[in-house]
Amino acid sequence: MTIPVLEIFGPTIQGEGMVIGQKTMFVRTAGCDYSCSWCDSKFTWDGSEKNNIRKMNAKEILDALIEEGGDRFGHVTISGGNPGLLPQLNNLVDLLHLHGVKVALETQGSKWQSWFTKINELTLSPKPPSSGMQTDFSVLDKIIESLSIEQKGTFSLKIVVFDDADLGYARKVHQRYPTVELFIQVGNDDLEKANEAELLAHLLERYEQLIDQVMADKELKHVRVLPQLHTYLWGNKRGV
Amino acid sequence: MTIPVLEIFGPTIQGEGMVIGQKTMFVRTAGCDYSCSWCDSKFTWDGSEKNNIRKMNAKEILDALIEEGGDRFGHVTISGGNPGLLPQLNNLVDLLHLHGVKVALETQGSKWQSWFTKINELTLSPKPPSSGMQTDFSVLDKIIESLSIEQKGTFSLKIVVFDDADLGYARKVHQRYPTVELFIQVGNDDLEKANEAELLAHLLERYEQLIDQVMADKELKHVRVLPQLHTYLWGNKRGV
Ligand code: SF4
Ligand code: SF4
Repeated sequence: MTIPVLEIFGPTIQGEGMVIGQKTMFVRTAGCDYSCSWCDSKFTWDGSEKNNIRKMNAKEILDALIEEGGDRFGHVTISGGNPGLLPQLNNLVDLLHLHGVKVALETQGSKWQSWFTKINELTLSPKPPSSGMQTDFSVLDKIIESLSIEQKGTFSLKIVVFDDADLGYARKVHQRYPTVELFIQVGNDDLEKANEAELLAHLLERYEQLIDQVMADKELKHVRVLPQLHTYLWGNKRGV
Repeated sequence: MTIPVLEIFGPTIQGEGMVIGQKTMFVRTAGCDYSCSWCDSKFTWDGSEKNNIRKMNAKEILDALIEEGGDRFGHVTISGGNPGLLPQLNNLVDLLHLHGVKVALETQGSKWQSWFTKINELTLSPKPPSSGMQTDFSVLDKIIESLSIEQKGTFSLKIVVFDDADLGYARKVHQRYPTVELFIQVGNDDLEKANEAELLAHLLERYEQLIDQVMADKELKHVRVLPQLHTYLWGNKRGV
């Protein structure tokens, strides 16, 4: 079974989450079972780039990664869309490991795949109320339980926060899974702003506000609050 | 034996390194065996704040942390100066753990302490040529060997890079300790700049340059490139 791929690029840095700053290649798969209001990669599921989707097998993806990144990488991040929809990613994960390449992956945690346990750094990013989506906690419970038992690498939770209701949701998730490392990320509510200086000032202000809120919070102790570094560097540009 | 303390503050976020973004309190100890040209905490060793040094025991430090951070923290970062000079920190580490508080610490790795093995997140930050200091690799070898055998938490290397010679040094350290996670950090060469917008533009430009260099490098594969987030947020201010 082939894998629907929309972008392969890098090496660049991972701009967010548990391996922030990591030198990595990116493979972006097409398709998502959600439709978050503020999704920053709508093109992966809204049909607008349907004609750009390449159906590739694991070997073809590895070849494309090497063509792009030469011998300058040892880490690949699989993102989407929701790559957690694709059982066939199992082959790609195995092939990359065979070549000594580490694999990170992000999914909202709406669906389990047995290959999750092989991912070196797995980020589960359930979506807060502002997304317009509903979390099925029975599925997330099972995923986290399974990972706690048999994950070979590390995994963490990441919640993007746009408003107070989102922060309340982060608190609830933290209470439900107190032993899983939680990353709280500032939402980028300004996907259209082209002026980089303005965007940057805006993002930093929102980051500082979120820090203030979390610092004052008694329940959010063992958490990390991070921005999206790539938006600081490259604004809302794609493929960097 | 008491501990010489210069600052206790927080909770705030850790702005750099392996636990970047972590909600944490800070305890800054006085005294350093180095005198790096670009040290951003010279006041810890240049005598200028000699009269502000408080000699505190572990219990007094915990009380001061609670006075400052209330019940809003579960993580403490010990920084300096070089806290690795102080055998008596053992008591503080034990006391914090007893209270369920995790402890991170940064040292340049010029001296071994047996309590290093108890630190939850230990950062070794040997200093590159631009600092004007010389690394005693025989000491660093022994520290890393000991930690590899008996460290209970995690540890990593962090190298601040100001110029090409520093990046060459990072490469050399990475070759010497290939299995230890390496963080490469952009040096802040502008400790005096007060205009935050200018400082920010300057720091981001330097971060982007460093990313470009590391991305093009074949030897630096398993590395993470990070800025100092606190300088983005608060410029060169102290105590935030
Ligand atoms: S889960 Fe991710 S990819 Fe899917 S709609 Fe939400 S933000 Fe977009
Ligand atoms: S080792 Fe750290 S505290 Fe000591 S002089 Fe160098 S930068 Fe300053």
